[in-house]
Amino acid sequence: MATRKKATKEEPVILITNDDGVTAPGLAALVDAVKHLGKVVVVAPDKPQSGMGHAITIGNPLRLVSAHNFADIEAWQCSGTPVDCVKLAVDKILHRKPDICLSGVNHGANHSINVIYSGTMSAAVEACIESIPSIGFSLLDYSIEADFSGAKKYATLLVEQILNSKSIDKHLCLNVNVPAIAAELIKGVKVCRQAYAKYVEDFDERLDPNGRKYYWLTGEFVNFDRGRDTDVWALNHNYVSIVPVQFDLTHYKLKEKLEKTLKF
Amino acid sequence: MATRKKATKEEPVILITNDDGVTAPGLAALVDAVKHLGKVVVVAPDKPQSGMGHAITIGNPLRLVSAHNFADIEAWQCSGTPVDCVKLAVDKILHRKPDICLSGVNHGANHSINVIYSGTMSAAVEACIESIPSIGFSLLDYSIEADFSGAKKYATLLVEQILNSKSIDKHLCLNVNVPAIAAELIKGVKVCRQAYAKYVEDFDERLDPNGRKYYWLTGEFVNFDRGRDTDVWALNHNYVSIVPVQFDLTHYKLKEKLEKTLKF
Repeated sequence: MATRKKATKEEPVILITNDDGVTAPGLAALVDAVKHLGKVVVVAPDKPQSGMGHAITIGNPLRLVSAHNFADIEAWQCSGTPVDCVKLAVDKILHRKPDICLSGVNHGANHSINVIYSGTMSAAVEACIESIPSIGFSLLDYSIEADFSGAKKYATLLVEQILNSKSIDKHLCLNVNVPAIAAELIKGVKVCRQAYAKYVEDFDERLDPNGRKYYWLTGEFVNFDRGRDTDVWALNHNYVSIVPVQFDLTHYKLKEKLEKTLKF
Repeated sequence: MATRKKATKEEPVILITNDDGVTAPGLAALVDAVKHLGKVVVVAPDKPQSGMGHAITIGNPLRLVSAHNFADIEAWQCSGTPVDCVKLAVDKILHRKPDICLSGVNHGANHSINVIYSGTMSAAVEACIESIPSIGFSLLDYSIEADFSGAKKYATLLVEQILNSKSIDKHLCLNVNVPAIAAELIKGVKVCRQAYAKYVEDFDERLDPNGRKYYWLTGEFVNFDRGRDTDVWALNHNYVSIVPVQFDLTHYKLKEKLEKTLKF
């Protein structure tokens, strides 16, 4: 078992991963935003892993090799999922827990229900399960050429603040989404709850050249939540949204009800 | 867009999926346990999908073909993840919401933190996001030849009770785990919270025939939770555990704290 000692406060170790892959511009933007705040180590998937949720690689072995796309940053690329990246980074690269784990900046929104499907956020959740404070960043722009200046600005401000706070909750996990507007147009930051929204699916059915059916997942995002305290509301009103995320999925209210009603 | 009308109470439609694949004995056991309670339709992965979490298939198309391993039950096998199966079933097979979605019986435990990694439970969570009451079943025995009699007994009792209840919460999602003991030794059922437990990873590093490193995920399960109201406690004491599961991951306590402390 690898030794995992707590990092000293003098030089925080910042683990960075994502789900768009090690060469994604959003990852480079995040590295750039925080590299002056500590020792950054990148461990990211070697290919896009969007929508992988909290998948881990069980039936196949994993590869982990150096990546050379950062001039002055230690970087690795892994054949697995974002969650695999976090696990491998702690056990085989850092040999200890980093002071913080950052994920992103994702090319595309991870607000509301997206937190569950998102590889970006699942990497952050995995870190917080392992008692590593974590933040996932996402920009509401899927483009490879997206403007990350707003995301970078708020990533710097938030990570600096968390690293400097006197008592970081070791299970801190934040889902940060940034509107796709110029940095100077962002009105500020709102701490929010996850909006109740979902995708209404409509698979696109096609025929392959052999006449056999196949399906593409498509879907329309529908927000059912009119609350002004949600991430979707904040983003629609040009605020950065921060949703604190937990990994205890127990539905306590329902638990109380079922304890009274179920009979065996 | 497919028409999705609510099923009539007279003949409930029961969608069944899993993550071990359409030929898994645990799936056959679940079909057998509930087929007298309504019209069962199986839509399950065409290969094992354990540990896939809430992954969905974005960058590739999906295949969906008839499966012929059930004599008298409509069954389909899908090339995607358990979550894909639920989405495809609703949109392309049932053309409506089933009255209930069942997932499993999984070969192996999905208590405590496993709910997050589990394809079985992610299928159930996906259903409840889509306003379909759902139950995931898991047996604490990974063996292909596991004895499902206890799981079958409690699956029948629970599904019957839920289908007959006057008001089913449309977002009901239950994580049911069954101890790996003979049905008559099971002491009963406990409605529980998810134990705080996790895996301590230790990757197994090997060299391939070309001298290049690769890694197998291994890990030791550690329960940090001494509570007597947890799923792990119930299972250790020969009870079936039922944890009601939610998909709102907002950490409300932390939200309150961060609203006061974060400054931008």
